[in-house]
Amino acid sequence: MTVERPFDFLNENVDKTVLVRLKGKKELRGKLKAFDVHMNIVLDEAEELEEGKVISKVGSMLVRGDNIVFISP
Amino acid sequence: MTVERPFDFLNENVDKTVLVRLKGKKELRGKLKAFDVHMNIVLDEAEELEEGKVISKVGSMLVRGDNIVFISP
Amino acid sequence: MTVERPFDFLNENVDKTVLVRLKGKKELRGKLKAFDVHMNIVLDEAEELEEGKVISKVGSMLVRGDNIVFISP
Amino acid sequence: MTVERPFDFLNENVDKTVLVRLKGKKELRGKLKAFDVHMNIVLDEAEELEEGKVISKVGSMLVRGDNIVFISP
Amino acid sequence: MTVERPFDFLNENVDKTVLVRLKGKKELRGKLKAFDVHMNIVLDEAEELEEGKVISKVGSMLVRGDNIVFISP
Amino acid sequence: MTVERPFDFLNENVDKTVLVRLKGKKELRGKLKAFDVHMNIVLDEAEELEEGKVISKVGSMLVRGDNIVFISP
Amino acid sequence: MTVERPFDFLNENVDKTVLVRLKGKKELRGKLKAFDVHMNIVLDEAEELEEGKVISKVGSMLVRGDNIVFISP
Repeated sequence: MTVERPFDFLNENVDKTVLVRLKGKKELRGKLKAFDVHMNIVLDEAEELEEGKVISKVGSMLVRGDNIVFISP
Repeated sequence: MTVERPFDFLNENVDKTVLVRLKGKKELRGKLKAFDVHMNIVLDEAEELEEGKVISKVGSMLVRGDNIVFISP
Repeated sequence: MTVERPFDFLNENVDKTVLVRLKGKKELRGKLKAFDVHMNIVLDEAEELEEGKVISKVGSMLVRGDNIVFISP
Repeated sequence: MTVERPFDFLNENVDKTVLVRLKGKKELRGKLKAFDVHMNIVLDEAEELEEGKVISKVGSMLVRGDNIVFISP
Repeated sequence: MTVERPFDFLNENVDKTVLVRLKGKKELRGKLKAFDVHMNIVLDEAEELEEGKVISKVGSMLVRGDNIVFISP
Repeated sequence: MTVERPFDFLNENVDKTVLVRLKGKKELRGKLKAFDVHMNIVLDEAEELEEGKVISKVGSMLVRGDNIVFISP
Repeated sequence: MTVERPFDFLNENVDKTVLVRLKGKKELRGKLKAFDVHMNIVLDEAEELEEGKVISKVGSMLVRGDNIVFISP
């Protein structure tokens, strides 16, 4: 992995499936479609997870960046 | 879905019904009428949900962006 | 309802009675007299509600915008 | 009441007694002496209230604006 | 008391003993030595209080402004 | 250790393994690959810890800076 | 102690041991090596304390300023 700035990491993962850990206990998983400097992101084919289990299929969504703990491929 | 920036996603959903997950347990559902860079949004024909059930019909409303976790069609 | 930006919504509701949902469990209801870009608002003939019941009459008040979840006519 | 901007409301209440609802359960009551754009305020002859009862007399104080829910005459 | 802006209040209290109410239950008391626009303050001969009782003597300290509810002489 | 500014510290630790204490009880451990002025960081070969025990292997991740308490080699 | 601005206080304490009270119950103690305007600080020979007792030796660390309540020599 060669990234110079943290947002290069997001750029490298566009159109790939990522796991998004949210503040609180939930996670989202979906295909990263877009992001901005606030770490607002758009996911496609998204699903919501709790303790590792899918609890709902959400389709596409815009996630507000300030809810995010980390994003991982 | 082709979006380049997260706010394109909102633009594509104007006049469509969206689900808005709020911090805490509640959700809002309504027709997206307007938004700004803070993710403040206006919903029309809005209703409030808790655990997936409608708990009140609110009509139109302005939602302050910092309460939002995600917005989904 | 035709609004282009979220704050048009507030502008349309000046001098009308609005319901203001606050973070936590409380709500305020009163006549919207003024607002600014931080969503700080002035209400007149305001009352405070908890679970839909009026718990006190407050008269006029300045509400700090960061406490607000949504504002609805 | 005629105010055009929320801070006109504070301007009209300088040297008058105001009730200040804080985040959490407490309230302050005192004479409004000064304010700024962050809603930092100075109160004179201030007292602290809990559930409507005076729990201490504090004299003058500078209140940091981000603790405030609303200010009311 | 004649103050025009909230920070005049701090200026008037430099080198005097102030009580600093913090978010949560604690208070600090000490001689105000310096402050800035974020309400970061330096106290000398400071002590920490809980429910009005001194729980520790801290000497001098820099307090980060965002922890402060109010400052009172 | 000779650092003049806090971010020199991060610069010195690029490509080294760091422990990242998060708000709440969790920690992350991984190789620091990139950082920015918001303290957003990219970790490689990352794992998540709770009470000092590895609870999951995450691979690479982008951590949003506002979740971080401290970073330590 | 003669400080004109709060950050003079930090400047005076560079290379000295300081106690850092964090939001929540924990404290850090270590030698102050660097700081910036956000109150991000670097500590060397740091240890973590809970209720006054050392619970772990951490070595050097970068602490994100927004976690800090106060810093004291």
